[in-house]
Amino acid sequence: MYRTKTCGELRIENVGEVVTLAGWVQRSRKMGGMTFIDLRDRYGITQLVFNQETDAPLCDRANKLGREYVIQVKGSVSERFSKNDKMPTGDIEIIVSELNVLNEALTPPFTIEEQTDGGDDLRMKYRYLDLRRECVRQNLELRHKFCIETRSFLDSLGFLEIETPVLVGSTPEGARDFIVPSRMNPGQFYALPQSPQTLKQLLMVAGMDKYFQIVKCFRDEDLRADRQPEFTQIDCEMSFVEQDDVIKTFEALTKHLFKTVRGIDLGEEPFLRMPWSEAMRRFGSDKPDMRFGMEFVELMDVLKGTGEFGVFNSAAYIGGICAKGCASYTRKQLDELTNFVKSPQIGAKGLVYARIQDDGTVKSSVDKFYTPEVLLRLKTAMQAEPGDLILIISGEEANRARKQLCELRLLMGSRLGLRDKNKFALLWVVDFPMFEWSDEEQRLMAMHHPFTSPKPEDIPLLDTDPAKVCANAYDMVCNGVEVGGGSIRIHDAVLQAKIFKILGFTPEKAQEQFGFLMNAFKYGAPPHGGLAYGLDRFVSLFAGLDSIRDCIAFPKNNSGRDVMLDAPSAVDKKQLDELQIALALRNQ
Amino acid sequence: MYRTKTCGELRIENVGEVVTLAGWVQRSRKMGGMTFIDLRDRYGITQLVFNQETDAPLCDRANKLGREYVIQVKGSVSERFSKNDKMPTGDIEIIVSELNVLNEALTPPFTIEEQTDGGDDLRMKYRYLDLRRECVRQNLELRHKFCIETRSFLDSLGFLEIETPVLVGSTPEGARDFIVPSRMNPGQFYALPQSPQTLKQLLMVAGMDKYFQIVKCFRDEDLRADRQPEFTQIDCEMSFVEQDDVIKTFEALTKHLFKTVRGIDLGEEPFLRMPWSEAMRRFGSDKPDMRFGMEFVELMDVLKGTGEFGVFNSAAYIGGICAKGCASYTRKQLDELTNFVKSPQIGAKGLVYARIQDDGTVKSSVDKFYTPEVLLRLKTAMQAEPGDLILIISGEEANRARKQLCELRLLMGSRLGLRDKNKFALLWVVDFPMFEWSDEEQRLMAMHHPFTSPKPEDIPLLDTDPAKVCANAYDMVCNGVEVGGGSIRIHDAVLQAKIFKILGFTPEKAQEQFGFLMNAFKYGAPPHGGLAYGLDRFVSLFAGLDSIRDCIAFPKNNSGRDVMLDAPSAVDKKQLDELQIALALRNQ
Repeated sequence: MYRTKTCGELRIENVGEVVTLAGWVQRSRKMGGMTFIDLRDRYGITQLVFNQETDAPLCDRANKLGREYVIQVKGSVSERFSKNDKMPTGDIEIIVSELNVLNEALTPPFTIEEQTDGGDDLRMKYRYLDLRRECVRQNLELRHKFCIETRSFLDSLGFLEIETPVLVGSTPEGARDFIVPSRMNPGQFYALPQSPQTLKQLLMVAGMDKYFQIVKCFRDEDLRADRQPEFTQIDCEMSFVEQDDVIKTFEALTKHLFKTVRGIDLGEEPFLRMPWSEAMRRFGSDKPDMRFGMEFVELMDVLKGTGEFGVFNSAAYIGGICAKGCASYTRKQLDELTNFVKSPQIGAKGLVYARIQDDGTVKSSVDKFYTPEVLLRLKTAMQAEPGDLILIISGEEANRARKQLCELRLLMGSRLGLRDKNKFALLWVVDFPMFEWSDEEQRLMAMHHPFTSPKPEDIPLLDTDPAKVCANAYDMVCNGVEVGGGSIRIHDAVLQAKIFKILGFTPEKAQEQFGFLMNAFKYGAPPHGGLAYGLDRFVSLFAGLDSIRDCIAFPKNNSGRDVMLDAPSAVDKKQLDELQIALALRNQ
Repeated sequence: MYRTKTCGELRIENVGEVVTLAGWVQRSRKMGGMTFIDLRDRYGITQLVFNQETDAPLCDRANKLGREYVIQVKGSVSERFSKNDKMPTGDIEIIVSELNVLNEALTPPFTIEEQTDGGDDLRMKYRYLDLRRECVRQNLELRHKFCIETRSFLDSLGFLEIETPVLVGSTPEGARDFIVPSRMNPGQFYALPQSPQTLKQLLMVAGMDKYFQIVKCFRDEDLRADRQPEFTQIDCEMSFVEQDDVIKTFEALTKHLFKTVRGIDLGEEPFLRMPWSEAMRRFGSDKPDMRFGMEFVELMDVLKGTGEFGVFNSAAYIGGICAKGCASYTRKQLDELTNFVKSPQIGAKGLVYARIQDDGTVKSSVDKFYTPEVLLRLKTAMQAEPGDLILIISGEEANRARKQLCELRLLMGSRLGLRDKNKFALLWVVDFPMFEWSDEEQRLMAMHHPFTSPKPEDIPLLDTDPAKVCANAYDMVCNGVEVGGGSIRIHDAVLQAKIFKILGFTPEKAQEQFGFLMNAFKYGAPPHGGLAYGLDRFVSLFAGLDSIRDCIAFPKNNSGRDVMLDAPSAVDKKQLDELQIALALRNQ
């Protein structure tokens, strides 16, 4: 061992001890014949002292050390003259008697500090230096603790962690698969799993009763800011359970994690459970951010047909939110909001606003279409007070307009400081529809996935009006983020076949892709259900991060590249020949 | 919840309680107006009783239940008339009042019993049924416990579990990579990691200090009986350590695992450490099975040039083992041994034997070439006694002959019952050579991997006689199986470049493949080293399995196929088009 102590553990009671430390030179400064060096390792920073008077050659060598040099020092622990109460080792320093340079270092391309001068690209290329920054390292420490606590809690409940294969078969339903050519089976391909969904269901058929796995999953999708081609799930499944059992189990896990990892006691109260339709109505979202109110008020009665504004008169939905104290917004600010909702990613046609003035009257962008009485009714409906700003969106498709209003609500929540990263609002969204219509595919698609069971009372609707069927599905939502989701599954081969049919599978296609599962259901499948958490997202929330990237050691960029490893990359033709595949590049 | 209790928890003190159980029908039998059903779940088996006299319709329904039906029953716990002390619930039975069939089951294609009538192929196709067998399920339970204990122990020592990416770059040094076409980067490929070796080294450069990960690794090799294309490693790395530190840390982990998972106390004594050259000399193996002796005796002095046997006189190595009490082996048995060592996978030219007769004289297959005095000297050298059988192998290449003799020693150990699966003999093999000559590649190859550091005292030999250089490498061996291996790594870019040169890399090739690592070494790399355990193999040893397959939930067969999922398989041309690759099948 190159050290007897770490850089984070020496305290005033160690004064007088002779110790050996090893670590990185964080910074060094000369002051009146003394050289002070901050030595850093994962555990902390300890101040080293070299004295020009006592040992000039040693001090000279210390003066030559550059940032990020790796050194080993021996010395005695001494009480500091001027203590630093901002660091745990701030009471002491090391009077160095021996110095050993273990490795030199080029000047790093950016500063290894909390606030670095390195941009994203540079940090990712030199990720091994970026990870030396305390704020980044702490995210990985938190992730580790999150996983340790997850495992110990689930283990204590009798869950078994069972590894499922990474090389599986391709199931194009859902997102795009990554595929892997098989050398031993030329012309055939493995796929990397988008999730172990069918495998965990087979484990239930196998009688494993309670399964979990912290597992890598893969989706070859065009990456948005907060997506990674490989991501990690806490994947869980239980047998002989109903929805309430799953919800209670994972609510308990969540409370355990908040308590042990974040030190936050969420109390005894069960989380709120909100039906999907209510979440859409009140917040325009299946993952409402409940840290703040600003609920939607439907204004069809107030504004449709009560004035000459054609947009509202032809709307299928008119809804508003009330932004407290924002009546003073300038024209420029209001234009910004209008441009925001009209941007392509939101897609609203426009934004109507109404200010409640100090005298209680209403001044609106649609004044000319409505009588003052109608506008006062608007004020009453919105429970608005003088100084408030009412923001209204309408649309010809109700849920689309609601989603647009939701984005606006979130923006206003952020502007008003209502989305505190250290406040956590959790709830379950339940009673999802089984299916949603896809304009692109011109068919019903599974809203959750094709293995989700319908509510028993809705099964007759499968034949008559499948779009009305509700599912035994549930999402756990925290601060407007879907951190987990699951369902009670189908365990009956006949019902499963019927769902595949509604989803547009021919019996042959269903058999080809999911025959192994439907076959397994014939040999005594228990009722079962489960849930999967998105680990990266959940940890990011715990760590207060804006992106999941910073809780991943080696993330990929938006083109799916690891810029540090320079992967993916071209491979030797010999490798392709062995796999009996060839490039077929389209002209770019 | 479909149950109030599991099938494994009811005891005599529960008598009188009304409970609900759910599970699978293991077997059923009718006896004098009663129907008895064994109900099974993961936790055990509970006997259900239906009485024709008390409730004929219920009993009739029970009589219709088939094997592996999934049922739910309600009833009262009753003391059994004839107890069964072989099962934990054997004191009680359930007098059933309600029966609910949750799912029917086709007759399984093989019996769900400890000794099944299903062959390997059938069991793998219906793996979800095979996993219902207690003996298979217990392997997965043991694996879970093994991982939980590994994590909790390493966590207690301050190790962080950090996930490294699965989609990395291809590094053809070593085994063959599985590669993954990148849709977003046409013509480029990810590779699946053969191990996170370089990434964990980067984590050390990043200052993570102590890392571990239980992680899937991938090798596209032609599969032997005990290999899988995807396998799991316990991968570990530490900074500021020397070989002794790593060995002590993982010896402690190993003892912890034996104690907590297997209930075996390996004591305070450190494991034996044996230099590689000694292991080769005494056992002909770098992973000697130390559960038994039967050590090699080198017989060059005794048999080379002391008689007319040309094979020995031209040999570079002659070695023997003494099989106690086997002098009575018949001609047929000896022929079997000879055929064994001459088989293609062993490759010896022949086998010489010598029986020590009751009168102390020696009767050998090479009698005619040697005087009785020489044969008595052989007997003395082998410390053989009347009734023993001496088996001798020679060869023109010493280590090749030793490996052949090793196989014979293992065979004899098995025959003599010296390889008890419940006895564990652990040791470290140390001081491996850095390089070994490859006839195929006509160059030196890294014996461990190219990142292993040479012994400091051997560094000058790198320039003069690299084949003589010893490495800071170590393997943990248990019962003749390499369960783990590691090394102290190079942390100096210049030394790393020199090793790549010895391994035949041009500077450009080294830069292209491992530039990211050598570059990282320039920014302050700490001394570091580590180790990786083969989890599948280690768990198999703990479970006493002959193959690693039975501790893997969904293993692949020798062609790399998952016969249950029917993977790999053909994919849609659309998928290939999107990836801009095409099949290039050679004529078969």
